[in-house]
Amino acid sequence: MSTALRTAAPDPALSTSSKDPLKVAADLARRLGDTANARDQAGGHAAQERGWIRASGLLTLSIPAEFGGQGADWPTVLQVVRILARADSALAHIFGFHHLQLAGIRLYGSAQQQRRFLTQTVEQNLFWGNALNPLDRRTTAGDADDGYTLDGIKSFSSGSVGSDWLTVSAWHEATGTALIGVLPTRQPGVEVHADWDAFGQKQTDSGNVHFSGVALPATQVLQAPRVSATPQSTLRSQVAQLIMTNLYLGIAEGAFEAARAYTVDEARPWFASGAPSAAADPLVQHRFGQLWLKLRPAAVLADHAARELERLFRLGPDVTARQRGELAIAVAEAKVLAHTAGIDISNQMFELTGARSTSARYGYDRFWRNVRVHTLHDPVDYKIRDLGRHALDGSLPEPTAYS
Amino acid sequence: MSTALRTAAPDPALSTSSKDPLKVAADLARRLGDTANARDQAGGHAAQERGWIRASGLLTLSIPAEFGGQGADWPTVLQVVRILARADSALAHIFGFHHLQLAGIRLYGSAQQQRRFLTQTVEQNLFWGNALNPLDRRTTAGDADDGYTLDGIKSFSSGSVGSDWLTVSAWHEATGTALIGVLPTRQPGVEVHADWDAFGQKQTDSGNVHFSGVALPATQVLQAPRVSATPQSTLRSQVAQLIMTNLYLGIAEGAFEAARAYTVDEARPWFASGAPSAAADPLVQHRFGQLWLKLRPAAVLADHAARELERLFRLGPDVTARQRGELAIAVAEAKVLAHTAGIDISNQMFELTGARSTSARYGYDRFWRNVRVHTLHDPVDYKIRDLGRHALDGSLPEPTAYS
Amino acid sequence: MSTALRTAAPDPALSTSSKDPLKVAADLARRLGDTANARDQAGGHAAQERGWIRASGLLTLSIPAEFGGQGADWPTVLQVVRILARADSALAHIFGFHHLQLAGIRLYGSAQQQRRFLTQTVEQNLFWGNALNPLDRRTTAGDADDGYTLDGIKSFSSGSVGSDWLTVSAWHEATGTALIGVLPTRQPGVEVHADWDAFGQKQTDSGNVHFSGVALPATQVLQAPRVSATPQSTLRSQVAQLIMTNLYLGIAEGAFEAARAYTVDEARPWFASGAPSAAADPLVQHRFGQLWLKLRPAAVLADHAARELERLFRLGPDVTARQRGELAIAVAEAKVLAHTAGIDISNQMFELTGARSTSARYGYDRFWRNVRVHTLHDPVDYKIRDLGRHALDGSLPEPTAYS
Amino acid sequence: MSTALRTAAPDPALSTSSKDPLKVAADLARRLGDTANARDQAGGHAAQERGWIRASGLLTLSIPAEFGGQGADWPTVLQVVRILARADSALAHIFGFHHLQLAGIRLYGSAQQQRRFLTQTVEQNLFWGNALNPLDRRTTAGDADDGYTLDGIKSFSSGSVGSDWLTVSAWHEATGTALIGVLPTRQPGVEVHADWDAFGQKQTDSGNVHFSGVALPATQVLQAPRVSATPQSTLRSQVAQLIMTNLYLGIAEGAFEAARAYTVDEARPWFASGAPSAAADPLVQHRFGQLWLKLRPAAVLADHAARELERLFRLGPDVTARQRGELAIAVAEAKVLAHTAGIDISNQMFELTGARSTSARYGYDRFWRNVRVHTLHDPVDYKIRDLGRHALDGSLPEPTAYS
Repeated sequence: MSTALRTAAPDPALSTSSKDPLKVAADLARRLGDTANARDQAGGHAAQERGWIRASGLLTLSIPAEFGGQGADWPTVLQVVRILARADSALAHIFGFHHLQLAGIRLYGSAQQQRRFLTQTVEQNLFWGNALNPLDRRTTAGDADDGYTLDGIKSFSSGSVGSDWLTVSAWHEATGTALIGVLPTRQPGVEVHADWDAFGQKQTDSGNVHFSGVALPATQVLQAPRVSATPQSTLRSQVAQLIMTNLYLGIAEGAFEAARAYTVDEARPWFASGAPSAAADPLVQHRFGQLWLKLRPAAVLADHAARELERLFRLGPDVTARQRGELAIAVAEAKVLAHTAGIDISNQMFELTGARSTSARYGYDRFWRNVRVHTLHDPVDYKIRDLGRHALDGSLPEPTAYS
Repeated sequence: MSTALRTAAPDPALSTSSKDPLKVAADLARRLGDTANARDQAGGHAAQERGWIRASGLLTLSIPAEFGGQGADWPTVLQVVRILARADSALAHIFGFHHLQLAGIRLYGSAQQQRRFLTQTVEQNLFWGNALNPLDRRTTAGDADDGYTLDGIKSFSSGSVGSDWLTVSAWHEATGTALIGVLPTRQPGVEVHADWDAFGQKQTDSGNVHFSGVALPATQVLQAPRVSATPQSTLRSQVAQLIMTNLYLGIAEGAFEAARAYTVDEARPWFASGAPSAAADPLVQHRFGQLWLKLRPAAVLADHAARELERLFRLGPDVTARQRGELAIAVAEAKVLAHTAGIDISNQMFELTGARSTSARYGYDRFWRNVRVHTLHDPVDYKIRDLGRHALDGSLPEPTAYS
Repeated sequence: MSTALRTAAPDPALSTSSKDPLKVAADLARRLGDTANARDQAGGHAAQERGWIRASGLLTLSIPAEFGGQGADWPTVLQVVRILARADSALAHIFGFHHLQLAGIRLYGSAQQQRRFLTQTVEQNLFWGNALNPLDRRTTAGDADDGYTLDGIKSFSSGSVGSDWLTVSAWHEATGTALIGVLPTRQPGVEVHADWDAFGQKQTDSGNVHFSGVALPATQVLQAPRVSATPQSTLRSQVAQLIMTNLYLGIAEGAFEAARAYTVDEARPWFASGAPSAAADPLVQHRFGQLWLKLRPAAVLADHAARELERLFRLGPDVTARQRGELAIAVAEAKVLAHTAGIDISNQMFELTGARSTSARYGYDRFWRNVRVHTLHDPVDYKIRDLGRHALDGSLPEPTAYS
Repeated sequence: MSTALRTAAPDPALSTSSKDPLKVAADLARRLGDTANARDQAGGHAAQERGWIRASGLLTLSIPAEFGGQGADWPTVLQVVRILARADSALAHIFGFHHLQLAGIRLYGSAQQQRRFLTQTVEQNLFWGNALNPLDRRTTAGDADDGYTLDGIKSFSSGSVGSDWLTVSAWHEATGTALIGVLPTRQPGVEVHADWDAFGQKQTDSGNVHFSGVALPATQVLQAPRVSATPQSTLRSQVAQLIMTNLYLGIAEGAFEAARAYTVDEARPWFASGAPSAAADPLVQHRFGQLWLKLRPAAVLADHAARELERLFRLGPDVTARQRGELAIAVAEAKVLAHTAGIDISNQMFELTGARSTSARYGYDRFWRNVRVHTLHDPVDYKIRDLGRHALDGSLPEPTAYS
């Protein structure tokens, strides 16, 4: 990614044709879609396509207007994630996780920090990456004169390659708690490894980041060690879960549309069906109906949860633990449904499209590979268990990085 | 049912305590719930309980204020159906089908007919029954001087026993089409047989009505032979389908709550689970979570479809075929989900509550028997096929009495 | 049940027409089937039909030839259970549990006890009932001069009403262990209550037995307190589990056949299907295919497990813990499949047969009610967990009364 | 593949260590397994590994002893397919399809042809490939002096690259029927394209074969145009279906074992589970149990069908249409169960193994990709429909290349 791109004004071809972010997203999705299959098979860092996202102006989408951003609400931001994911779920992931980092600044950061980092993001059109995997405690924070020194490794760092800034968590052994901070990616001591090698979501740049004696000044610490999480700050995991929900949904929708178009345009009726076309075969129609019944509820509940997130986000520090917990239930419902829709549609679509649809020139297996890898972020069975507990006695999920 | 009850002012114990129909419904449901298990096992006509419904004032719920009714919107009417169905799905059925007949008058009837029959319903607090099974062509309409003469049998006539008026369809052989009319139940030539003997929804009074030389004057014909259905008039089947959707949902909710309460209050942990209580068993929690994920989407999509129905109902004759078709899709989605939720929850709840919960003193099998019988109104596989067709090429369900 | 019946020679109409027990069973099943629906709806004790079973000669089926019995192997005995259960799963249950008691005598009893009780069973054509629910510790055994004194209640005592002898377990508080013994049903101090009121398996006579100062002489104690179970003796729970497996399977087969015959003979094609008959509808055929794929594997694995049981039974005291554990795995596989087949077929058959098939004159809901009640004997989720543990590390189920 | 390999004596390292073909297969599977992941990712022709198969001596496994082969029965041959497929389903496919071609010679060929081609296969250790896709009519057979001339393309020609001989079908326009013949792969006019590009079963060499004026002498025609198929000859499609069944099963078993070993050896317990290890988590155990219940019935029914195939194969021309049809039912049962087991296990295994298991160094996605591609050979929904038809009225599947 060139400096030119990084500081460029939004590309007129993508963004000035329309102020409507959903239209911008649709245009961008079309452009990404043209090469999504080829890039999925190749894997690696999508420098050019990340440049397109940057040029689209959508990096400032969730930033409040007072800091120069577009001030879009969460339903809009998440809709953009879904639109992009239909075409290219890896780039959509990077886009969504960029806004997750910005949400973190708004939820954890002081007023000063919010102003500084969000304004800077707008002015320099910055791209943020994630290095905040809390289950991986290998990155430690040692006390330093004016802040901390970071050392160690952080895995599953989505969007890290090619990012300008990172959000990072580190284990502070002195207190036995974690801190959360932000730092520029390109500096001595930070090494971003392009070593992500999963079989799906290949271009998410989700490899390991290595820290070696990296200074984290106090002004860049969003949440210091020993500071307790609040209902407001723990909204971050709900933002993360809803971004994932919309990624799964986008993949499900992309797979469904691929199966639909193939069935109508290319599939042949099975000789024993007696049907004049594949699309006229009752067994084909019935199975499409069943898959549709996976897709629709997931979309409706995801939209509902997005509106709830927006409502609580606006409450700021007034959000209560109960409200936060009820949001977590709504998000869990949507996430499990989107998980199931994504897995079932990307898996079963082939029963409808048949043997010839497995050619690499279609690349239809990428839907399953992408959603299969991404849905493993946290175990679906524990989301279902949380919902069962809630249904049994009204108990709300304990706020964690995953619930 | 006594004349006294029929013309009585609403019972203060039920209805004047509150103007809110949802509260009235909740009170009525509580009262019905006390004896629902016993009456389900006995079957037969629930004269007294139909009297309570009548006394509650809820028979005028859907009637527009201009005719003296309460003018409630469809979401409210359907919510009442659901509330009642949690406690007693047979009586809820009769209640819902009463409002279906009233909807028919509003959709098919002339301005004069609407004024006449709806005003009369309010003034006399009438209870309507159904004799409009269009697949049963055994009732025929012969031409008469001022109208028609009806002869034959009509099956699946829900709410017919104990009704004041009936909506009836009859096959007009001269034109090879059906007519739809209304007539008072108690008159010579009309015999309502209390011969409904299904294993569920026992107290729905859904037996056969026999017609023998019954005069149907032209003024009571809502839709004459050969008159084409309009997008507006065919909304009736969507009202019917949504009433059923909410009946299934109410049963599902009732079963879920029964399973939940039993698990928390009475179930013992399985000795091999190591859990301190049944509700703390991870496998129990997980299964409750799965059932919850059947219930919630069905409820959300049913509410969505109810709002759409209300919107189109208000459009009156301006509703287009496309709008009507899109409503039919929304209703089909909700109905299949409610069907599945009802069947799965009423069936699987026993895996959670165990052997001792099968005692007749709980009567928990009634949930399955009721939803199993009622969900057979029209085949779910054809609803799913309709959704598949729609998903494939955007085609809308052909307007029939079932879609 | 009259004394005449009890000591009667086998009824020629049932048993002497053929020596083949499967033919005898088929004849008996036909006779039971004629009234199964009516008796299911009425519930209560089936004295006459128990008399037919007794008269059929099948009560001696599993008794070794050396004691005068027919010496049939377990595959044959279990096949008879299945054949009877197709027609009448309550009476099949009583029949199967009779042979379970006889198995207990062979597995726990001394040589002398085996000779005494099995010979007596043949000579007097005795009917055995069960009072051996080990999770119910309310029946206690106090030490007495020559044996024990029993007091308390025992629930879920299948076949107790109308039985001649009972197997009973009792909690011996002095040692904190249970004993197992046999005793004649008709004696002072034993009260068999006909208080079974579950919504299924209504005629299984599975109510409470009350014991009040009942003497259990040492000669009737099959397993004394503190005696450790052996791999051989714990085969009893595998016999019990396989009897249940075959009961579920018989119900599944009965339901499938009812659905099949109704579809072919009575069902009408759905008007929107375009099919000339219900049986020619591709969606109907597909769903029948899915149900068939529940039935067949369950039957094949049940037969496999029955052969394994026979093999281990013949090993006598030489059976090892590993062999017994591997049998328990084979039985668990078959039982879960039969459970699922029974529940799914009896539930889904109605999607195929439709609304008119819910009439009480068919009584098709009894399949679901019967299998739903009976499959709750022990939780299916713990059988599945046992299989998962075995698959993970080869561990075998701990021998209990349920595994 | 070098000529040396082709005519080589079996490699002592593989085959002479043991006469037991299952041991030979296990050794070969181990060797293939070492590189299966890497080769799956690379795709292309596995010349070296095909050489190992050839060197193992297993190419003569199904050939009757009278022609110099090992005379193994079908259960053994299919077990070898399954063993190989656990490790490398692409090479197992090639191996299985080689024996399918040999079965074709035995079923269609004259006594003379059988002797000639089977003896030659043993003597020269020949590898056979498939060019017999009957739905692809682009290859035509024109009449020639002593036989036919073939022109056109044949798709899905598994094992064609690197084969010595091919079985081919061609459309004979003069009669409107197809012929079946055999011919050497390496000859002018035959071009085998290595253009198979599906996302799974990558090394099956299943691309297009082009024929251009290729002479097919009458002596190489196994089934001439217009010759009617017999029950015996149509056993070929059952051999094909059972080879596929065992391929799916092998993949399912390989995936299950990978998930099991990873869970026991590498997976970490989820932090919210409270379990000391992933393998001790009740939700993990339960899901393993569910997958096990997919695997076991499929294996048992596949073995049953293999024995039935062997039985009918031995009947030769005496096999009746009814016997052949009943075999087709048994095969269809096994194939659908194996299909489902393969798809469900390869898909759901990741819920058990989690995010870190998606690394390319494990390559666990290959199980899903392989079984997903291969199960599309013919639509599973039509196998299920065939079973439903059979269950409804006893009708047997029409003999086709797929049933």
